[in-house]
Order: sequence, then structure tokens, then C-alpha cells
Amino acid sequence: MHSPGGDNLWLHRAIYVAQPGDVLVVSVGDAHDFGYWGEIMCCAAQVRGLGGLVIDGCVRDGGVLAEFALPVFARGLCIRGTGKDYGARGWINYPTLFCDLLVRPGDLIVGDADGVVAIPRERAHEVIGAAQQRQVKETAILARLRQGERTLEVYNF
Amino acid sequence: MHSPGGDNLWLHRAIYVAQPGDVLVVSVGDAHDFGYWGEIMCCAAQVRGLGGLVIDGCVRDGGVLAEFALPVFARGLCIRGTGKDYGARGWINYPTLFCDLLVRPGDLIVGDADGVVAIPRERAHEVIGAAQQRQVKETAILARLRQGERTLEVYNF
Amino acid sequence: MHSPGGDNLWLHRAIYVAQPGDVLVVSVGDAHDFGYWGEIMCCAAQVRGLGGLVIDGCVRDGGVLAEFALPVFARGLCIRGTGKDYGARGWINYPTLFCDLLVRPGDLIVGDADGVVAIPRERAHEVIGAAQQRQVKETAILARLRQGERTLEVYNF
Repeated sequence: MHSPGGDNLWLHRAIYVAQPGDVLVVSVGDAHDFGYWGEIMCCAAQVRGLGGLVIDGCVRDGGVLAEFALPVFARGLCIRGTGKDYGARGWINYPTLFCDLLVRPGDLIVGDADGVVAIPRERAHEVIGAAQQRQVKETAILARLRQGERTLEVYNF
Repeated sequence: MHSPGGDNLWLHRAIYVAQPGDVLVVSVGDAHDFGYWGEIMCCAAQVRGLGGLVIDGCVRDGGVLAEFALPVFARGLCIRGTGKDYGARGWINYPTLFCDLLVRPGDLIVGDADGVVAIPRERAHEVIGAAQQRQVKETAILARLRQGERTLEVYNF
Repeated sequence: MHSPGGDNLWLHRAIYVAQPGDVLVVSVGDAHDFGYWGEIMCCAAQVRGLGGLVIDGCVRDGGVLAEFALPVFARGLCIRGTGKDYGARGWINYPTLFCDLLVRPGDLIVGDADGVVAIPRERAHEVIGAAQQRQVKETAILARLRQGERTLEVYNF
């Protein structure tokens, strides 16, 4: 989705358009330094059963957000408030340019301490399969390393 | 207060000019990358009962500072030492330009995980009142959201 | 050591050239945004008994790396994978320009929450002695401050 810069009315709308498990992926143009999302919206999203928030702008109430089960990936923290412009145009459930990545509704959003990735929906099955295979392979490699083998031989470098 | 860049003699002086509860708000010009404040000064400030430190430069002993009860808001961590220039000019208890914000002695300094704000002294009563009202209002809103109401109706968006 | 940008083959080699206790200090040119080091390599380095990693590029598996006993100092986190270029030139156990600091094999590498320093090998004994003296001195100063003395007198400012 796209939220007009400095405005979070479309984010409120999106919370109720989204289905349980959905992750909101939000572009805000260049207007990063606003607190687009805080305790109230996090609570609303959690009640709705949303899966998380990924936003190319800042959020506020950082200490409180960390206590919610809902994962939030944001550019940073900013206390500056947003307005409510009823005439501003945003969009929900359309492709969104997030930094230099086009994210489309239905793409699989996966994040951890390293960051977030968007996996195109049509490749999700393939990527999950490859990831699971890699995890199995790496678990076996870790076991061999712990027994004293070297990565140079394990990988045949 | 203002500390000459790369020097922390005025910070030592300020610790003993300040009264218990006072928060030191320190500009350092463009000389951010020095460790202006560390374990010794934090201990001294705590013994004096100061309320905290907000500095537009770096501090050192980051791991240790976090163990003190005294809150420290700084630009970052830097181990580079400061000098003691007995001829350098600083000032204490005069207005200070902190980034683009003029902070005056007696302004109310409030910070949390999101950052720090300076509230002009003459508006402190009004702002605290408004903040408390907002907190009461938001607590009620959070309760309504948890019972299934939507922000769209709660706020009449 | 130097690792060719976007490649971590030399890092694998270095793990097995290094001796137990050695800290790998790695320059990567300007190619910071790769995940040069992750769970597999951290495990291999720990099995080898290495002392740590200091790299002027990014690493991946950030959440997992924090669980290892091996300290990792990196520029940041990046999930972007590295390649294996068998023709690329790196070097191990030669002086390396790390940012603007020349680090030589055998230099003493010491880090904590504030950052990392490299102490030239020929000055290590002198620096450790001075550091220990300072620690003794500061412990005594902290005790005096807690008893109410002021830094102004303690340091004779």
C-alpha cells in the first residue's frame, strides 16, 4: 500500500481492509520522518490479527511497540505527528515501490533480525522449498564443523 | 550549556553548577566525535543527583553508562578522548542552540526510547496537562479497540 | 587480511590459517553491503578457537551470531550473499588498511561496547600497563566521588 507522506489515514483504513495474517507493506514517498504508526494502531492491528508492518518511514512509541507480538520493521523512530488529510490519495492492494523493490499484494513477506524480504507470490512455493533444503543442508554442515571438519573440504573450496 | 568542541572541562563545571534533578543539555558545535562523558562523570552526576544528560556529541563507556540510573541521550559512542583547555569558552545556564532547537535554562526535558523533547518552561504546565489528558483518552481508546471497535469509528475518520 | 569485495573465499581460508586466539581483521574495499560472515563461518571459527572477527563490511544471521561466544564487530547487517571467485586476490597476514588505520598481523585487537582498537604489537606491553594503571586510578576516583568529593578537586581542574 501507499500512504501519502505525513498522513496516516490510509494506514487506519488498511488495518481494516487487511485480512488476518496479512503484513502491511507501506511506502510513504520521501516523507520518512513522521511517526506513522504507534501504540493505538499496533493495538488495532493486533486485535485484527494482522501479521506485521513493514514501513519505509518511521514509527513512534518504540518502547511500547516492542511489547506487542506484532512485528514492526521501520526506518527508525520519530515522534513527529501525522495529519489526517481526507483528500490525500493513497492506495491499498496495489503494487507498491518499496525503495527500489516492487512489492505486490500477496507477496510473501518474511523478516528477522537481518531485515525483511518480499518473495513474489508465484515463486513462494519454490523459495520456501529451497530455503528448507538449505536449512537441512546447513544443519548437517554445522554438525560436521563441530566434529572438526573444515569448511574448505565440506564445501570443496 | 555549551561545551567547547573536544573539551569536557565545562561539563565537569556544569555537574557542580547544576542542582539535583537538573538535566544537562549540551551543545558541542560540530565536534561530535569525542567521548565527552564516561563512567567517572556519570558517577559524579549521579552522586550530585542530576536528572540526566542530553548531548549533541558522543559519549564513551557505553556498556557501563547503561548500568547507571542516570539517563544519557547522546549522538553515539566514541572512545576518542577530550582535552582540558582552561582558556576555552563555554557557557552554563544560557540559551543553547541544540541542533535547530533553542533550549533555555529551566525548560522541561523529557525523553524515552523515541527521543527527547524540550518543553519551554512557560508552557510546561499546559503541555503536561494536555499530555495527561491524551494519555487518559488513549487508554480508553485502547480498551475500546481490544473490545473489537475500529479506529475508523472511534476517531470518526 | 583483505577479502576481495563481494567474495568470502579468503575468509574461509583465513579461518584455517589463523591460530587459536587470533582475531581476524578484514578489509573489503568499498564493497560493504554483503553478508560476508554468517552462522556457518562463525561456527567454524569457534571450533578453531579464534578470538573474534572485525570486518569493515556487513555480516548476516545477526540474531544467531549474537548467540556465539565469538565476538563479531561489523559495519552492519546485510543478507546479500557473497560469491566464490577462485581468481580473486586477497591476502592474509599482511598489513591491511582498515578505514584509515593500518593494522598489522600481531597487533593487539581489543573491543567492547564502545568499539574496537588495534594496538601496535611493539606498544602492547606499554599500553596494557598504562590501561591497568588508569583502571586502578579510576577505581580510586570513583570511590572518592561516591564519598562526595568533586571531580574539580579530585582532578585539580
